[in-house]
Amino acid sequence: MTAFETIAGALDDLRIEVPSWAYGNSGTRFKVFGSPGTPRTVQEKISDAAAVHRVTGLTPKVALHIPWDRVEDVDALASFAADQGVELGTINSNTFQDDDFKFGGLTHHDEAIRRKAIDHHLECLDIMDRTGSRDLKIWLADGSNYPGQSDMRARQDRLADALHTIYERLGTDQRLVLEYKFFEPSFYHTDVPDWGTALTQVLALGEKAVVCLDTGHHAPGTNIEFIVMQLLRLGKLGSFDFNSRFYADDDLIVGSADPFQLFRIMVEVIRGGGFGPDADVAFMLDQCHNIEKKIPGQIRSVLNVQEMTARALLVDRPALTEAQEAGDVLGAHEIFMDAFYTDIRADLADWRADRGLPRDPMRAYAQSGYQEQIETDRVGGTPMSW
Amino acid sequence: MTAFETIAGALDDLRIEVPSWAYGNSGTRFKVFGSPGTPRTVQEKISDAAAVHRVTGLTPKVALHIPWDRVEDVDALASFAADQGVELGTINSNTFQDDDFKFGGLTHHDEAIRRKAIDHHLECLDIMDRTGSRDLKIWLADGSNYPGQSDMRARQDRLADALHTIYERLGTDQRLVLEYKFFEPSFYHTDVPDWGTALTQVLALGEKAVVCLDTGHHAPGTNIEFIVMQLLRLGKLGSFDFNSRFYADDDLIVGSADPFQLFRIMVEVIRGGGFGPDADVAFMLDQCHNIEKKIPGQIRSVLNVQEMTARALLVDRPALTEAQEAGDVLGAHEIFMDAFYTDIRADLADWRADRGLPRDPMRAYAQSGYQEQIETDRVGGTPMSW
Amino acid sequence: MTAFETIAGALDDLRIEVPSWAYGNSGTRFKVFGSPGTPRTVQEKISDAAAVHRVTGLTPKVALHIPWDRVEDVDALASFAADQGVELGTINSNTFQDDDFKFGGLTHHDEAIRRKAIDHHLECLDIMDRTGSRDLKIWLADGSNYPGQSDMRARQDRLADALHTIYERLGTDQRLVLEYKFFEPSFYHTDVPDWGTALTQVLALGEKAVVCLDTGHHAPGTNIEFIVMQLLRLGKLGSFDFNSRFYADDDLIVGSADPFQLFRIMVEVIRGGGFGPDADVAFMLDQCHNIEKKIPGQIRSVLNVQEMTARALLVDRPALTEAQEAGDVLGAHEIFMDAFYTDIRADLADWRADRGLPRDPMRAYAQSGYQEQIETDRVGGTPMSW
Amino acid sequence: MTAFETIAGALDDLRIEVPSWAYGNSGTRFKVFGSPGTPRTVQEKISDAAAVHRVTGLTPKVALHIPWDRVEDVDALASFAADQGVELGTINSNTFQDDDFKFGGLTHHDEAIRRKAIDHHLECLDIMDRTGSRDLKIWLADGSNYPGQSDMRARQDRLADALHTIYERLGTDQRLVLEYKFFEPSFYHTDVPDWGTALTQVLALGEKAVVCLDTGHHAPGTNIEFIVMQLLRLGKLGSFDFNSRFYADDDLIVGSADPFQLFRIMVEVIRGGGFGPDADVAFMLDQCHNIEKKIPGQIRSVLNVQEMTARALLVDRPALTEAQEAGDVLGAHEIFMDAFYTDIRADLADWRADRGLPRDPMRAYAQSGYQEQIETDRVGGTPMSW
Repeated sequence: MTAFETIAGALDDLRIEVPSWAYGNSGTRFKVFGSPGTPRTVQEKISDAAAVHRVTGLTPKVALHIPWDRVEDVDALASFAADQGVELGTINSNTFQDDDFKFGGLTHHDEAIRRKAIDHHLECLDIMDRTGSRDLKIWLADGSNYPGQSDMRARQDRLADALHTIYERLGTDQRLVLEYKFFEPSFYHTDVPDWGTALTQVLALGEKAVVCLDTGHHAPGTNIEFIVMQLLRLGKLGSFDFNSRFYADDDLIVGSADPFQLFRIMVEVIRGGGFGPDADVAFMLDQCHNIEKKIPGQIRSVLNVQEMTARALLVDRPALTEAQEAGDVLGAHEIFMDAFYTDIRADLADWRADRGLPRDPMRAYAQSGYQEQIETDRVGGTPMSW
Repeated sequence: MTAFETIAGALDDLRIEVPSWAYGNSGTRFKVFGSPGTPRTVQEKISDAAAVHRVTGLTPKVALHIPWDRVEDVDALASFAADQGVELGTINSNTFQDDDFKFGGLTHHDEAIRRKAIDHHLECLDIMDRTGSRDLKIWLADGSNYPGQSDMRARQDRLADALHTIYERLGTDQRLVLEYKFFEPSFYHTDVPDWGTALTQVLALGEKAVVCLDTGHHAPGTNIEFIVMQLLRLGKLGSFDFNSRFYADDDLIVGSADPFQLFRIMVEVIRGGGFGPDADVAFMLDQCHNIEKKIPGQIRSVLNVQEMTARALLVDRPALTEAQEAGDVLGAHEIFMDAFYTDIRADLADWRADRGLPRDPMRAYAQSGYQEQIETDRVGGTPMSW
Repeated sequence: MTAFETIAGALDDLRIEVPSWAYGNSGTRFKVFGSPGTPRTVQEKISDAAAVHRVTGLTPKVALHIPWDRVEDVDALASFAADQGVELGTINSNTFQDDDFKFGGLTHHDEAIRRKAIDHHLECLDIMDRTGSRDLKIWLADGSNYPGQSDMRARQDRLADALHTIYERLGTDQRLVLEYKFFEPSFYHTDVPDWGTALTQVLALGEKAVVCLDTGHHAPGTNIEFIVMQLLRLGKLGSFDFNSRFYADDDLIVGSADPFQLFRIMVEVIRGGGFGPDADVAFMLDQCHNIEKKIPGQIRSVLNVQEMTARALLVDRPALTEAQEAGDVLGAHEIFMDAFYTDIRADLADWRADRGLPRDPMRAYAQSGYQEQIETDRVGGTPMSW
Repeated sequence: MTAFETIAGALDDLRIEVPSWAYGNSGTRFKVFGSPGTPRTVQEKISDAAAVHRVTGLTPKVALHIPWDRVEDVDALASFAADQGVELGTINSNTFQDDDFKFGGLTHHDEAIRRKAIDHHLECLDIMDRTGSRDLKIWLADGSNYPGQSDMRARQDRLADALHTIYERLGTDQRLVLEYKFFEPSFYHTDVPDWGTALTQVLALGEKAVVCLDTGHHAPGTNIEFIVMQLLRLGKLGSFDFNSRFYADDDLIVGSADPFQLFRIMVEVIRGGGFGPDADVAFMLDQCHNIEKKIPGQIRSVLNVQEMTARALLVDRPALTEAQEAGDVLGAHEIFMDAFYTDIRADLADWRADRGLPRDPMRAYAQSGYQEQIETDRVGGTPMSW
């Protein structure tokens, strides 16, 4: 039995949610470049997500963003998704694009605006009741740009109150997943800037509140896998938003900037019980394909996660533990690196073939004609964008 | 004679160009919040800039951005500005918003696109011939997002060639000012990421090519005043783009994030001969007023530069040198800090009154009725924005 | 009544502990420069600390570091300190200089070494019983240098167990204060790298366990005053280690690198109830005077804290709140900055004179003859150092 | 012919200098941990370096550090090295450990101290005349800790003068290699903090002056391979100091923190002509093995460079260029990553066997008995250290 064969079965547990917004146009504050074939409707976004799932077998769920993906008939949308071979997943709220939220939503000093932000989340929960989604993911753009502009302490207290109201409305099997972010779009302070704050807030809520770790939302130099370890240890790691970065929240393809970091993260996920049949950590992408093609960008991303999961599973744990406890620094490091450097790509191709999937999903997509079709079909209308 | 009186005259040399785009709407990739009274035309932007000059006496020039500020009749625009009490200043080129420039402009692998980018700069020079502007400021968004995506070396060579072509077209009294930026909108590599690259490129051009230092365009922890010192020493500091930051290129009001850093920068400017009647370093703002009012934001900004210039002028140089050469670390530091901590605001109010300016420009603007007027008048039309 | 007069009384509550080790030699891994007059004994360190208190009136307590300051007769040392006019304060443990702790102390995989580290803390508590010290401050150098070298999760669990054992031994009025640090001396992972981890660990212990915030122990760009706000909100801010930094844990004089940051921190301390007669947050210095004179370096440091506390007290809270709730970004920022820019140095000189203290503590020390005396007296012996 | 076979010959050009000081004890400012078998003499350091060369075939030269490696009889030392199978290489100067250099060496305001620093470099050149070394490598610790402490501009001018004096003394085939470093041991300003300053200084000297790039000496987020590209383009990349880092100048084993970054660097080295029979870029290690065994640490390091050089050579350049010029972002990135992910370790083992080297140098060293021998033999004496 090869090393890969010992882990092949475990790979069957890997599922990665794809975000509907990844298929729309995105960019920087300087320019959003358009691209042919961009979806004009949420249905077209779901179709694109399904195209990713067909060639990878990894992405059975699509996350939605409200209000971007708001529809009259949620049940019809769920049926549409099912017809495409995917399900509706996590619901993401949005309190950063309404003019009322210029100075905050759930943290706003004006009770009426705060109430509006809360109501938006209750609407999201209504939608979740229809879609059967488990997770309400909350990322807050709230913060301030200038020292003195706002009262950080009062905002934190208001946030706690607002989250409590939302939490109370959760259904039995629903979770509130609170995401943190180091900075942007606020440039002086952010109301949930770090995992400590997210943890503090969810601990005050209860068992159904957990933390979302977006891999791009940390200060330079932060040891992200340490945070993964800690949140798993505390039973509070709810989900990942995968992407990668060189500088700020660059939202590049996961694993493209620092593949070894992704490996280390997956090692801690596995070490801490965050992966496997009984684990309840949701893996999601949250990326922007500003200049590359979006569907192949998503395929590349989930393959990167799959490849690093495979490498992480290959770590020889008994040998590693032995070296660690012997104080053998170089020996332990070498065992660790051996898994990272093992080229599992050919084995994964076989693994896919065994499961009726294309050996090379990137090529399979390129040859499928799907891209040409959407570029031809999707003429007119307004391409979806942030 | 008070300490302030010894430096009051020197303050008369301070001039800060304001950018036309600061009066339009700006924001982040997440949202551009609008505000009442936002200019719909370049003329309205110039009017707003003139309002800043009227209350501060510091901003006699307005920088333009092409194509945002492109007009049929440049001479008429210059006359309009003169009527408002200001002049047209630096011309800023733009090769980051045309779809052709998705993968670069002056560095693009396709010669036709490169030529288009060069031609855009030649058009800017044509405009400068009409406006009498001295400086063509070039900030390049060029770069790449993924390792392997592009050939950084070939791009650098193409950049050198393209800049050469532009440089050749400069008039006798014109300058090419090359700006560098650490990252954004490109997230893996940027073609002019640091002062070393900008210097390398302008040295290859000739005497009329100089470097623009944007205070927000550096890696975390960078000692910016050191770069100011070095570029002045080499005779290559052409201009400043002033703003401030906590994280990335936040484009906040200059002096708002780290006033002591602004002080240190001004100290080096003065030490290196970059300020005074014979200096040819252009001071400019380059900021985004995403959530604050734009005209008061500009007034606050130029006042911050003025206040820090005054404090920097107050440094007791002979005493400082003596302490430095005595190896008196704490003594030298204290002399330096004494200037920074001196509250010159009341003296500056007197200084303004002596020159027929309002003692408190922020209040003067608020009471002028200008803001209410533009909010009433500027209804309909399309607010200008990036 | 001037603005300063309204806050003068509040300044009487300011007390800053000085660390005994600040008077010994320190340096970088490259070189420790010696200086004449450096203490050879803990008594001489206490004398130096007392010299700081005599001219500032701000530093009635000296923190000790075990084993550096271990003595046979703790009571005699306490008496000696009392004779000098100061008290013994916080006890700092040390598990980073014994060869056994090369791979960790409280987190070590070897139970015997872990036990040794725990016993060291119990010894510290014994000392505290004699000195009457309230706080046992624990900074851990524990971590690893290479990915794979150690099991971060197991270490975190062992840390929790070890801290529990120490916590159990605390006397009624004693506290366990856990310090976090971003990195150094470990370069891959640190076992208590951030406030979230410190909080998590102290929450698991109980009421008498709190967090120490060292201002130099954060990732680049971290909003430290936000953490101050959050820990105060949670009732878990135990103490400060004050110092300042440009890059890593530079351990420079507090307020010398970014005085505005120190101001913002003090504003949040006051806002959150961390300062005043009933507050139980301990202010301490933790700095290295590598190249400057040590006693004047300490005087400068406590004066910087005092000056910024005064400025922070000057913030016009009602006006600030009004501007904040009106969404007046620039107005609120200006009220905030007005306090920062107010030059309170002359008022503080008067305040000192009113209390029988020298108006200018730096000059008073220089003229006291103390420095010349110790440089003459302290010849021979081994200067104390890290 | 396999892909590896096409590049196997090129690997014969790889040579990496090892530094004598890597075999001595090193640590952080907190603690230097000793280890059995540490050299007590420069000869023992050279023996250890030879042990690395025997099992890797990659390190025929040992760099020396003066005064650490100063000997009476340089010729005898060279003979000793030759007997061990290695040569003496780059000479590194040291102006950071003499008390006179507390406030700088080549930049010091006192001419006598500056002269002393210059003379030290002239002594190094005398040694180089005897050893036949090509490179005088100059890393300066010069800088300051507090704003205002020193006159950065005057220091830069003095540095230029001092380097000029040293440069004048270079022999025909000798080079002056100037290293830059972002910070440490100075914490406010460093006199040669970035590649731009190093370039500026060496350009003013002449052809025989070049820049040393230490991979750990940059601000967070810096794109190091871009600097490699630029310096090669300008013909000014003299040498590398290889190591790796997560935070500051951690001096960890090269390739251990971010192997993909090392790959990208080697790709640019090859792209820019910095590798091969005619290239004159010197590859060196500059690391600290604080907690791991030193000789195996060096072996691991040179193997990492070798492995990444092999992967970098595997990049399919024609295919990459085609994808780049087609604007195929994902295609180009995939070609690039394909080389990185190719596991060349088994091929390299064969390559070694073909050349009479052990297939697995780490195991070969472990089994050689050398480590046990030195641990037994080197008892007594003073272990060498920084």
